[in-house]
Amino acid sequence: MSEKNKLSIICMSGDFDKAIAVFTLASGAAAVNYEVNLFFTFWGLDILKNKRGRRFIGKGILARFFNFLLGGRSNLPLSRLNFAGLSPLLMTGLMKSRNVATLTELYDAAVALGVNFYACEMAMHVLGLERADFVPEVKDVLGVATFLELSKGGQTLFI
Amino acid sequence: MSEKNKLSIICMSGDFDKAIAVFTLASGAAAVNYEVNLFFTFWGLDILKNKRGRRFIGKGILARFFNFLLGGRSNLPLSRLNFAGLSPLLMTGLMKSRNVATLTELYDAAVALGVNFYACEMAMHVLGLERADFVPEVKDVLGVATFLELSKGGQTLFI
Amino acid sequence: MSEKNKLSIICMSGDFDKAIAVFTLASGAAAVNYEVNLFFTFWGLDILKNKRGRRFIGKGILARFFNFLLGGRSNLPLSRLNFAGLSPLLMTGLMKSRNVATLTELYDAAVALGVNFYACEMAMHVLGLERADFVPEVKDVLGVATFLELSKGGQTLFI
Repeated sequence: MSEKNKLSIICMSGDFDKAIAVFTLASGAAAVNYEVNLFFTFWGLDILKNKRGRRFIGKGILARFFNFLLGGRSNLPLSRLNFAGLSPLLMTGLMKSRNVATLTELYDAAVALGVNFYACEMAMHVLGLERADFVPEVKDVLGVATFLELSKGGQTLFI
Repeated sequence: MSEKNKLSIICMSGDFDKAIAVFTLASGAAAVNYEVNLFFTFWGLDILKNKRGRRFIGKGILARFFNFLLGGRSNLPLSRLNFAGLSPLLMTGLMKSRNVATLTELYDAAVALGVNFYACEMAMHVLGLERADFVPEVKDVLGVATFLELSKGGQTLFI
Repeated sequence: MSEKNKLSIICMSGDFDKAIAVFTLASGAAAVNYEVNLFFTFWGLDILKNKRGRRFIGKGILARFFNFLLGGRSNLPLSRLNFAGLSPLLMTGLMKSRNVATLTELYDAAVALGVNFYACEMAMHVLGLERADFVPEVKDVLGVATFLELSKGGQTLFI
């Protein structure tokens, strides 16, 4: 009768290495049958954009400017030693050479294992983003209160 | 008879966007009747200073130097794309144009909703700061053990 | 019959100030009789290397390059205002002048108080690091699933 174990992560960072951490934790937990809830907000929303490259999207000039600079999932920087985007490429090469799952593979694994993806309503509003700007895997658009309700009784991380 | 839901956040970051996240979570949780405990430490203490601009405060030359560089609540940088402080201004403009609460409004909402503010004893000591350097909303000055006791049984985040 | 209180921290950051936070929380919790589990991954592994200076270690040229740049426990940068490594030295000076425990002292306290140190299997693999590259205090090399199991029922933070 015990409830299912639960892991919830507020994914605010758009850094490459932190995204790797999010998806490693998410797929690792889902693989041992945890309910996993990922709540993407601010820079983290970048990971969910359906266009992976740099694009001027969003409503309003300032929002378009921020969204372009962020750049989408293919342009996530390392939080340290980024070297203008070279290091994430090197790191991906390193992961491939080790037969470790890359970000794209970890993402696909998370989807296959039933990890729940949520997008933060307020951050979408600030950045002028709409549901249509995101990958179809996004289950819902939520506010803070709903996310807290969903994550109650489990382990919750902020990354 | 169930206990009140509880959200506790260790606020170490002095970044503008992370402060937005802290106060959005705090006011969102308090609005649905959570007990909310914010424990400010290191750079996070900057948010609580009663003087919002750059000031040489604190005991000792090194402490004064760090406190000046930090700059107070009006000078919080973005964790990414900061552009020497321009981006937080743009982001605030963007939030205002969207009718989303700004940092000051979120802060005021948190106070109005009864969010508890605590300052970290050790970090204050290192930075040479005293109770009088902070806003009056600070409920108490705590150490780690007391904070852990306060936050037990709820969700705890490190931001 | 109540279970022991538990604090678990995923230590991904290799920043000096965040390492201070990890060890302050860990030793503070252990001092009031918590079970404390620290799970070091990615940049955080730097803190556990037995050679504290910059060294070309790890298997493969790319791994050696990253490990050299990271630099070991003596070269952890501040997450803000780092000034090419000067600030961590100043901060340590400041902590000493205040009679606050430095990183090395906090580390030693954590060991003395029985804090558990774990290293992340996957990150070690990516960075080409082996058990022999770490301090002997590392209790075990774990994957995500085992860490989640260990940390269940307590408070878990990501730093």
